[in-house]
Amino acid sequence: MKGLQQHPLYAMVNPRSLAFFGASNRFSAMGTNQLHSVLSLGFEGPIYPVHPQEKQVLGLTAYQDVMDLPEVPDLAVMVLPTSVVPETLERCGRKGIKRAVIVSGGFNEVGGQGPELQKEIKDIAGRYGIRFLGPNCLGVVNPYHKFNMTFLPFTGQAGFIGFASQSGSFITQMFDYLAGLGIGFSTGFSVGNEADMDIVDCLEYLAQCPHTRVIGLYIEAIRRGRAFIETARRIVPHKPIVAFYVGGSELGKRAGLSHTGALAGPDKLYDGVFRQAGILRARSMTELFDFCLVLGSSPLPQGKRVVIQTHSGGPGAVAADACGRAGLELPAFSPETVGRLAPYVPQTGSLNNPVDLTYARNLEDYFKAIPETLLSEPRADGLLLYLMLPSHPMRRVLSAMGVAEDQIQAQIDQMVAQMAEYLIRLTAEQTKPIIGFSYRARVDKLIGLLQQRGFPVLPSPHRAARAMDALVRYRHLRERFGRQEDRISS
Amino acid sequence: MKGLQQHPLYAMVNPRSLAFFGASNRFSAMGTNQLHSVLSLGFEGPIYPVHPQEKQVLGLTAYQDVMDLPEVPDLAVMVLPTSVVPETLERCGRKGIKRAVIVSGGFNEVGGQGPELQKEIKDIAGRYGIRFLGPNCLGVVNPYHKFNMTFLPFTGQAGFIGFASQSGSFITQMFDYLAGLGIGFSTGFSVGNEADMDIVDCLEYLAQCPHTRVIGLYIEAIRRGRAFIETARRIVPHKPIVAFYVGGSELGKRAGLSHTGALAGPDKLYDGVFRQAGILRARSMTELFDFCLVLGSSPLPQGKRVVIQTHSGGPGAVAADACGRAGLELPAFSPETVGRLAPYVPQTGSLNNPVDLTYARNLEDYFKAIPETLLSEPRADGLLLYLMLPSHPMRRVLSAMGVAEDQIQAQIDQMVAQMAEYLIRLTAEQTKPIIGFSYRARVDKLIGLLQQRGFPVLPSPHRAARAMDALVRYRHLRERFGRQEDRISS
Repeated sequence: MKGLQQHPLYAMVNPRSLAFFGASNRFSAMGTNQLHSVLSLGFEGPIYPVHPQEKQVLGLTAYQDVMDLPEVPDLAVMVLPTSVVPETLERCGRKGIKRAVIVSGGFNEVGGQGPELQKEIKDIAGRYGIRFLGPNCLGVVNPYHKFNMTFLPFTGQAGFIGFASQSGSFITQMFDYLAGLGIGFSTGFSVGNEADMDIVDCLEYLAQCPHTRVIGLYIEAIRRGRAFIETARRIVPHKPIVAFYVGGSELGKRAGLSHTGALAGPDKLYDGVFRQAGILRARSMTELFDFCLVLGSSPLPQGKRVVIQTHSGGPGAVAADACGRAGLELPAFSPETVGRLAPYVPQTGSLNNPVDLTYARNLEDYFKAIPETLLSEPRADGLLLYLMLPSHPMRRVLSAMGVAEDQIQAQIDQMVAQMAEYLIRLTAEQTKPIIGFSYRARVDKLIGLLQQRGFPVLPSPHRAARAMDALVRYRHLRERFGRQEDRISS
Repeated sequence: MKGLQQHPLYAMVNPRSLAFFGASNRFSAMGTNQLHSVLSLGFEGPIYPVHPQEKQVLGLTAYQDVMDLPEVPDLAVMVLPTSVVPETLERCGRKGIKRAVIVSGGFNEVGGQGPELQKEIKDIAGRYGIRFLGPNCLGVVNPYHKFNMTFLPFTGQAGFIGFASQSGSFITQMFDYLAGLGIGFSTGFSVGNEADMDIVDCLEYLAQCPHTRVIGLYIEAIRRGRAFIETARRIVPHKPIVAFYVGGSELGKRAGLSHTGALAGPDKLYDGVFRQAGILRARSMTELFDFCLVLGSSPLPQGKRVVIQTHSGGPGAVAADACGRAGLELPAFSPETVGRLAPYVPQTGSLNNPVDLTYARNLEDYFKAIPETLLSEPRADGLLLYLMLPSHPMRRVLSAMGVAEDQIQAQIDQMVAQMAEYLIRLTAEQTKPIIGFSYRARVDKLIGLLQQRGFPVLPSPHRAARAMDALVRYRHLRERFGRQEDRISS
C-alpha cells in the first residue's frame, strides 16, 4: 500500500482548499446545504464557490469561472445538474485540479444517456489525471480535518469508525445515531457509482488512517471482487472490517439495483466473499455499528466463555438466551470464584452464571468488587454487565440523611460518576472485554457517562451478546489471516 | 369468562385500600421502595403500613398488627422476610383480607425449605379463601388506577399493553423504555412463582380489561399448558397476544430454571404451543414491545404487500431487504399510481417500490400527497414510511426570508407539528397500516410528536418490517381462530 498522503483519497478527505460548484444563495438547493455543512463544521482552508451569476455565496466571494480562482485548490466539489458536469470537470482539469467529489446524479444509476455521460466524465478525468469520488454520492466527512461536505451538518463526535458506503444517507444521517452510542466516524466516504474511486480504494485508505480503529462497509454490490478480497485479507490482521450487504434478499437486491445501478449477487455468493475476505458480516445497519462499537473499544476475548452479571432475573435469563443464540458459552464458576463471590450475593440471588444479585446490594460491590471477581475467573473470557442505576433510591437515602435539597442532585451525580469511574478503571486494567447492556439509556445517567468514556453499552442483551460474539469471531479471523500473512511474507 | 370485577385479579390491580407489610423508614429496603412507588403515583385509597416497631412509615400511620386496622383492606402487599410470610398471611386471613401480592422470595425458586414453605402459604390461603400473586414477584402496575407497587416509580405513561411477566424487571424497568416508543402498560402483572394466580389467570383478566388492546407475555415456562392454549385461543379473535419465551436456547432454559424454579421445555415444544394458541412469538423483548406497539395502534393489513416511501436510497434498499427477510412483498405500482406519483418524484428519484424521492422535495408532498397516493394503490396493503425532518434547512430558509431570530424556533415547531398533523389525519382516514422508521429519534422532533399521538415509529427498517409482518400474521390468526370460535359457538 502507498503512504497515506500519497493515496488518491487523501486530498478528498484532507483538502487544504476547495472549489465548490453548485452552492448558491437558494437555501433549499442541495449544494447550498452541503456548503453550509462545510462552513458550520469550521473548515479551515480557503473555499472558492464557483457560480455563474452570484458574487457571493453564503458570505464567501464567488467566482464565475474556475479559471479565475487565485490558486489551484486541492479538491473540487460538484453538486451540479448532470448536463454541466462534464464541461465543469474539463475546466477543473485545465485549471490543474487533481481531485474531485462529484455529488451530481443522473449517470449509470439512471437509464438513457446516464452510462454514456459517466463514461464521458471518466474519460475527461483520465485525460487530466483527475481522481474522483462519485458520481451520485453524498460526499465525505472527516471530523478530524473539520471537513463535512454531506447534506446534514456534523452534530456528532469524531470517532474511530472508518466507513465506506454505497449509500450516502448512512453517513450523513447517522451522525446523531452514532453519538447516541458514544461513537463516531473517523472518516466516511459515500462512494456513489464508483466510476473511479471505489470501495476497495476506501479500504486501502482506511487501513492506513491513524484515527480508524475499525472499518465499516455498507454494500449493495462489489464491483472488483478479487481486489476487494485481497485488500481486505491484508487489512484484517491489523484492523477489523464489518460489512452489511443489502442485496441479501431478493427485494434488497432489486432495490439496490435501482439505487446505484450495480448488480448484486446472490446472498450465498456474498457470504463466500466475506468469508474469504475475513470480513464480519452484520445483519442490519444497527448490528454493523454495534460491532464497530465493541471492536473499536474492547480487547479481544481468548474464547467464547462469557459471564453475565445482573441484579434482575429476567434480564439475566434473556441475556443467557441471547448468548445461547449467539453461540457463546456460559461457564460454571470455579470453586475459588464461588468462594470469593459468596459474601456479595444475597440469599435470594444466584451464584450460578448468570450471576443474579437481586436488588439488595450495595452499589460499590456491583460496579467494582463483583465484576473484578468475575473477570478474574480463569474459565471466563468476557463479561456482559447489566447496567441499571436509578437515581430515586439515592435521592431518598440522601434526603433521609438530611442532605440539603439543593445538594442532593450534585451528590447523586458524584455517586454516579464514581460508579462509572470504577468501571472505566476496570476496563483499563483488563485484557478481557466488558460489554454493558441496559434498557434505560434514556434515564440512567450512568449509561451516557460510560459511553462518553468509551465504555461500550448496548440497548438490549441480544445486541450485546451478538456484539460479544463479533469480538470472538474477529479474534479467530485475525489469527487465521495473520498466520496466512506470515506465510506470504516469509 | 367471569366479569372483570369478579375476577380474582381485579382487586389486586384495582384495590380500594391496601395493607402494606415490609415497608419501613429504612430507605434501602425493598419494601420501602415499593411503598414509595405507590405513594409517588398518587394512589387514592387508604394505605395501612403494618410494622412491628414503627409508629409512622413514610409519613403514614403504621399499625403493629393487621388485626388493628380500622377496616378490612382490599389487598395485602407483602415484602417480608420469607420466614414470616406464612404467619402474616394467616393473620391477614383472620382479618378477612381476600387478596394478597406476595413479593417475598425464598420459596420454590430456591432449594431446601423453599418448596415446603410455598406449599404452606398455599394451604393457608386456601383455608381463608385468599387468592394471591407470587411469591417471588415484583407486584403489579395499573396506571389507570394510579397504582404502581413495583420497585421503580412510574415514570412512563398509561397505555394499551396488558402485560404478564415471569420477570418483574420487565415491568418495572420498562416504564421509560416504553415511553421512548410512545407506549405504556394498561396493567402489568409480575407473576413470580405462580403458586396461586398464574399467567393463564392474567390472560383471562387482560382479555376483559377495557384499557388493554394487546397482551404481552414474558415466559420462562408455562405451568398449565392446556389451559394456556385454550384461554389464548378464545382471546386471539378479539385481542392479539405476543409472547417472548426465554427458554428457547439451552442457556436461556438453564437461566430461567434458576430464576423461578420452573422447568422450561424444548424450543420446538413452545413453538407448537404458541402456534396452537394463536400467539405471535417474538424473538426478543425489543421485538415483543415492537409488536405490541403496532398491534395496539394500527389497522390490520389485508395482505403482505408493502410500499416503502423514502427520500434516501440506502434506507430504502435496507427497508426492502428487511421486508424480504420478514416475508413481505413489494408490489409494483399500477399504471394509475405511477401516473399520480410522477409529478412528485424528481428525475433523480425512483417510481419503483421503494419510492425514493431523493432530497429535492417539498415537505407537504412527502407527508401528505405522496403517502395518500401510495395508500390508494390497490396492490398495496400497508406503508413503511421513512421519517427524517432535520430542522436546520428550515432554519436557514426562515432566516433567509428575514424571520426574526427569536421567531424561528416557534415557526419550525409549527411546521413540524403541521407535518405530524398530516400523518395523524392520514392514519385516521386509513384502513391500511402505516409504520414509520427512523434512525434519528434523538434529534428529529417529528418522531416524538408522532409517537405522542399514537403513530408507530420504530428505530430501524428491520424492526419496522418485522412489526408490519406481525400485523399480517395477526390478521391471519384472527381469521383462523375467529372461524373456529364460530364453529364452536354455533
